[in-house]
Amino acid sequence: MRGKIDSWEGDEYLKAKLFSMPDFEKISFPVLLLNEKIAKQNLEVMVGKFRNAGVEFRPHFKTHQSRQLGRWFRDAGVKSITVSSLAMARYFAGDGWDDITVAFPVNIRRMDLIRDLAQRVNLHLLVEDPESVAALGVEKELKVSVWIKIDVGTGRTGIPYHAIEQIENVISAISKFGNLQFSGFLAHPGHTYSAGNIEEINEIHLESVQRMTGLKERFGRQFPALRISLGDTPSAGVATDFTGIDEFRPGNFIFYDLMQEHLGACGIEDIAICMACPIVALHPDRKEIVIHGGAVHFGKESLSSGGRVHFGLVVANDEQNWRSREIHGFLTALSQEHGIVHMEEQFMKQYKVGDLLTILPVHSCLTADAMGRIYGLEGILYDHFRSGKGAD
Amino acid sequence: MRGKIDSWEGDEYLKAKLFSMPDFEKISFPVLLLNEKIAKQNLEVMVGKFRNAGVEFRPHFKTHQSRQLGRWFRDAGVKSITVSSLAMARYFAGDGWDDITVAFPVNIRRMDLIRDLAQRVNLHLLVEDPESVAALGVEKELKVSVWIKIDVGTGRTGIPYHAIEQIENVISAISKFGNLQFSGFLAHPGHTYSAGNIEEINEIHLESVQRMTGLKERFGRQFPALRISLGDTPSAGVATDFTGIDEFRPGNFIFYDLMQEHLGACGIEDIAICMACPIVALHPDRKEIVIHGGAVHFGKESLSSGGRVHFGLVVANDEQNWRSREIHGFLTALSQEHGIVHMEEQFMKQYKVGDLLTILPVHSCLTADAMGRIYGLEGILYDHFRSGKGAD
Repeated sequence: MRGKIDSWEGDEYLKAKLFSMPDFEKISFPVLLLNEKIAKQNLEVMVGKFRNAGVEFRPHFKTHQSRQLGRWFRDAGVKSITVSSLAMARYFAGDGWDDITVAFPVNIRRMDLIRDLAQRVNLHLLVEDPESVAALGVEKELKVSVWIKIDVGTGRTGIPYHAIEQIENVISAISKFGNLQFSGFLAHPGHTYSAGNIEEINEIHLESVQRMTGLKERFGRQFPALRISLGDTPSAGVATDFTGIDEFRPGNFIFYDLMQEHLGACGIEDIAICMACPIVALHPDRKEIVIHGGAVHFGKESLSSGGRVHFGLVVANDEQNWRSREIHGFLTALSQEHGIVHMEEQFMKQYKVGDLLTILPVHSCLTADAMGRIYGLEGILYDHFRSGKGAD
Repeated sequence: MRGKIDSWEGDEYLKAKLFSMPDFEKISFPVLLLNEKIAKQNLEVMVGKFRNAGVEFRPHFKTHQSRQLGRWFRDAGVKSITVSSLAMARYFAGDGWDDITVAFPVNIRRMDLIRDLAQRVNLHLLVEDPESVAALGVEKELKVSVWIKIDVGTGRTGIPYHAIEQIENVISAISKFGNLQFSGFLAHPGHTYSAGNIEEINEIHLESVQRMTGLKERFGRQFPALRISLGDTPSAGVATDFTGIDEFRPGNFIFYDLMQEHLGACGIEDIAICMACPIVALHPDRKEIVIHGGAVHFGKESLSSGGRVHFGLVVANDEQNWRSREIHGFLTALSQEHGIVHMEEQFMKQYKVGDLLTILPVHSCLTADAMGRIYGLEGILYDHFRSGKGAD
């Protein structure tokens, strides 16, 4: 059942593929553009922030999913990373990353891949029940670090932070197996994505820290080396106090997107990726433009902002780059390959059939995953975990 | 800017890849399953329906996007097909299809590919404005068939059926260029997807037919060979009267999905594909199960049914096949790789961490596109236009 991505092991996909961007004239189908300057700046800010805070920075690579972009992080001193699946761990292990957290409840059906990875890298897995612990524990040859996934209030995965008995049961299960190293507690305060403003993000952040350090205190005597891992981009962008946290795992910040901008975690000018889509029809009577660029390209994450639900924001471009601050319209509907843009007359008259629209995405992780390729404005085609998908 | 899919030309990807399904034991990450028997039956029904109606059947291949599945259609006597992009036309042209409609307003930025395709196949393109017509017309060497895209009430693309002057302007533009053959009027009555019941679908269908045949009558004296093309799966499933239509282009029927079942276009037992996803955590207190299977696998199309918004329906399975009529739960939330299933206690007690859930998708076109690979229950790994994406 293992597929083509196995062949990505090794260096064959890592050579920078040069092309002749940023001449927008050459773009003929929906492509995902990357402004390297912005992304590198986002990275620099985040690396500096956690270095100053004395917190280990373990960035989540599920946003960019690119070995080439991963190397920027390595150049910036990053040694440990987070991914969202075992297959993604294998992809990055193939590029020399040797300290990888799979921030997802362990999938015990993939023991073959877990065994393989554990031999090659310092592998961190998440557990939240004694059954999964036992499935790992009986594999005597397997040496892995396990973290207990804690739910600090998001309600998605993990043991509720206050369910001490449940936590003790899992710790007790871990302790039975000499091959499993109990590393600490890990949480994703994803409810920051539902926050209404910066203050609320900060409140959720501080509350999450408090809940996690509470657990550290409670179990610290028994396990003096245990660590606390948190991570979400809204908190990473907004918070200034990381006291008590051992490591932080934001991911989205490398690209940011309209969701983060909406939350206040970044400015619109910090968004480092943008879709470029050909106009295929104009409907001035309906104030609508039809583009080649649909759900298979953008993903279908929407944002409700100012009473309007949309899938992206059309911004001006000068055929060399986009200009985030000049908003020309909204991507209001997506079918499989069609996108419908709402645009007022004063902007629509600037465009004709065959022109390109540049559109900031609502959720950069999903758009990058749907596209599977990233075209840098500096002329490099970046590889992506999903590269084979093809962008057109 | 042309990528890896160019290498799909030729026969290398067409050899049936055998694997050892349907032993569900071997599934260790999210996979898309296909019940060939159901899909072949769906195909047979549709082929028969249009043969009996004396209407050319030009199925839309954007649903399955697979050369191997395309061969089933050829074996059933299908000679002409519909696709949703020029790149998809190239993919199927590479497997010998030589009569292809790109049911999308023509993208004049891809003239290189249009030229290439027009030399190899009988290529049908959609136009809706004189500018696009001129862009094709000035390419003297290019011989293509053009259809005027008509909006019969959906409000997505095309010239409104009643905007006779606009239609005449486009016809007049086409007539200026000897290399463009005006073939007729084409519409997609996509508003059948908003219908409340079978009767409404049928009403929209009949109204669309009337609007299109009205155009045919009006322009028929001037262009005696002009044809009327319609196509949507709800009408194809529900309608019985296709009088006046020359060709019909449904696509989704090969797999069907919960959306079609909701509309009444198929029964739940006609749905031919199903996701299989590993359970990674159980939360009986919240009546929730966490699976590996998120927005990157399912796509993010939702369905509002009985006051509940969901992304899929969990159905029973016997480790060899799924059982559509035994509903066990709802896929209520999707993040990038996580899915959250709501399940009542009596069903939840049948599952444990590491088991597989089988889940019917809301929109099979988007799920198949997101997955990029299809595992047949008969043991064949079907290729897909997006195959390189990798399923895990």
